[in-house]
Amino acid sequence: MSATIINGKAIAAELRARVAAQVPAFRDATGRAPGLAVVLVGEDAASAVYVRNKGRATREAGMESIEHRLPDTTTTAELLDLVGRLNADPAVDGILVQLPLPAAVDTQAVIEAIDPDKDVDGFHPVNAGRLATGLDGLVPCTPLGCILLLRTIHPHLAGLEAVVVGRSNIVGKPMAQLLLRESCTVTVVHSRTRDAFAHIRQADIVVAAVGIPGFVPAAAIKPGATVIDVGINRTDTGLVGDVDFAAASEVAGAITPVPGGVGPMTIACLLRNTLVAAARREGVSLDLATIDGAAA
Amino acid sequence: MSATIINGKAIAAELRARVAAQVPAFRDATGRAPGLAVVLVGEDAASAVYVRNKGRATREAGMESIEHRLPDTTTTAELLDLVGRLNADPAVDGILVQLPLPAAVDTQAVIEAIDPDKDVDGFHPVNAGRLATGLDGLVPCTPLGCILLLRTIHPHLAGLEAVVVGRSNIVGKPMAQLLLRESCTVTVVHSRTRDAFAHIRQADIVVAAVGIPGFVPAAAIKPGATVIDVGINRTDTGLVGDVDFAAASEVAGAITPVPGGVGPMTIACLLRNTLVAAARREGVSLDLATIDGAAA
Repeated sequence: MSATIINGKAIAAELRARVAAQVPAFRDATGRAPGLAVVLVGEDAASAVYVRNKGRATREAGMESIEHRLPDTTTTAELLDLVGRLNADPAVDGILVQLPLPAAVDTQAVIEAIDPDKDVDGFHPVNAGRLATGLDGLVPCTPLGCILLLRTIHPHLAGLEAVVVGRSNIVGKPMAQLLLRESCTVTVVHSRTRDAFAHIRQADIVVAAVGIPGFVPAAAIKPGATVIDVGINRTDTGLVGDVDFAAASEVAGAITPVPGGVGPMTIACLLRNTLVAAARREGVSLDLATIDGAAA
Repeated sequence: MSATIINGKAIAAELRARVAAQVPAFRDATGRAPGLAVVLVGEDAASAVYVRNKGRATREAGMESIEHRLPDTTTTAELLDLVGRLNADPAVDGILVQLPLPAAVDTQAVIEAIDPDKDVDGFHPVNAGRLATGLDGLVPCTPLGCILLLRTIHPHLAGLEAVVVGRSNIVGKPMAQLLLRESCTVTVVHSRTRDAFAHIRQADIVVAAVGIPGFVPAAAIKPGATVIDVGINRTDTGLVGDVDFAAASEVAGAITPVPGGVGPMTIACLLRNTLVAAARREGVSLDLATIDGAAA
C-alpha cells in the first residue's frame, strides 16, 4: 500500500488564496488593509529567512507588513516598549515576535505583554486559556495548520483515535486541545512515556512533534493511519521529519512530507490569524468555515 | 483482592491542618488573616449548603470568611460591580462566585471579571492558560485534590498511564493538564470516544468525571489500578459515584469512595488556594511541597 501524500504546499496556497480573497471586503469596510507587525531581534540567519518569508506572504495576501529589526543588544525594556506601541497602534492587527529571542531577554514577559487580541502566534496565556476552555481566541499556527491538513483527509474527526507525540507549549499541548475540541479521543505521549509506540500503533491519527529525526518508525504506525509530521530536523542528508517517511508511507493511509507538509501551513495560518484578529477588532464578520476550507 | 480505600475525608483534614498551620506566620508577616470572599446568588439549597460549609472551613483554618448573599434577581451588572469591589479590596485574597448562577446572569463575564490572582476556583481563562503552558497560577480545586489523593498512593506519578473520563472545563480538561505536568501519559476519553473501556482497561490511573452513576464497571478496570471517582450523583439509593464502587473495589489497587473521597478535598484545596493567593499577593514565601504533602 502506498499512502496519500498530503500536499501541504498546495493546501497552504489554497488557504492563503481564501484569506487574500477576504481582504478587499475588509478594506472596503474599514478603509485599510489588515496589518501584521513582525519583530526580529538579532542576526539569527534562520529567523531572518522566516521573517522575510512572512513579510512576502503578508504582502501577497494584500495585507500590510510592518517589520521591526532590532540589534541583538536590545533589552527587555526596549522590547516591551515596542510591543506597547504596537498594541496601541490601530493599524496593527497582529503582532509576531520572532522566537528565539536573545538569551538576555525575558521571553515570557515579552509574550505576555502582547495584547491577546493581537497575539497571532497564540502563545499568550490568555489565548492558551481560551483554547483550553473552549472560548474563541487566537490558536497557535502550527497545530491549527495540522488540523486543517487532517480535515482534507477526514472531513469529520469526531471519534477518531489521535496520539500526539510531544508536549511542547507551541505544538504538542495546543494540538491535543484542538483534537479534543474536534471530539477525537486524545492521548499525549512524551519522553517519560513507557511505551509510546504501543499508543501510536492504536492511533487513526498520529501527530509527531518531538524534534527527533525519524523517531516514529513504520512499524509503530497502524496500517491506514493518517500521519502528520511536524518535525523539521536538519541532518547531514537534509531536512527530515520526526517520522521515517520512506517506510511509513508504505504503511500509512496518508502522510505529510518534510518539507512541504506542515511547514507551509504555519505561514498560511499566520495570515489567517491576522485576518481573524483584524476582523474581530473592527467588528467585520467573517465566514471562518469557508476560509478554513471546512467540508460542506 | 480488595482495594485500599483512599480516605479523602482524613487526607483533606490533614491538608486543612497544614494550611491552618501556615496562617499564624502569614498573620505575623502581614498583620491580617488571609481573606476568602464567597458570593452566593439566589436560593439554591445545595449551593447554600456548599457556601455554609466553605465559610465554616475557612474560619476553622484561621482565615477570614466574607460572605455576600444576593437575591436571585441580581443582574450581571450588579454582580460585576461587586466583583470589582472585591478585586479592589486589599483584605480579600480569594474570590469564589458559587455556581451555577441564575440563568439571566452572564456567568462567563462574571468569571472573567475576577482578578486572576484572586481566582481561587481557577476557572478564569488566564489561570487555565497558565496551567496549559506550565506557569504558576491558581488551579481548579477538584482536579488539584485528585492529584493530592493520587500522590498518597503513587509518590511518583511520572510514566504512569492515566485515563481521564470526561472533558469538562471544571474537572476533565484541567485534570488532564495536571496529570501531564506530573509526566503521566494521558488519554482523555469522552462521549464521542468509540471504546472508552478499552482505554480505561490499560490505565494505571483512572479519573472518572462524567456524572453518570456507575459508568465505569469493574470489568473496565485493570487489576491493581488506582481509581479516583469525581462523580457525585444523587440516586434513589443515595449518593453514588461514576464508578461501580462495590465491584470495582474488588479489582482496583486503590479507590476513592463516594462520598468521602474527592469531595472533601475540594474544600481543602479551596483553603489551600486562598493561602497561596494571599501569600503571592503579600510576597510571603510558602513551602508548597510541605503544604501539599509531597513525598519526602
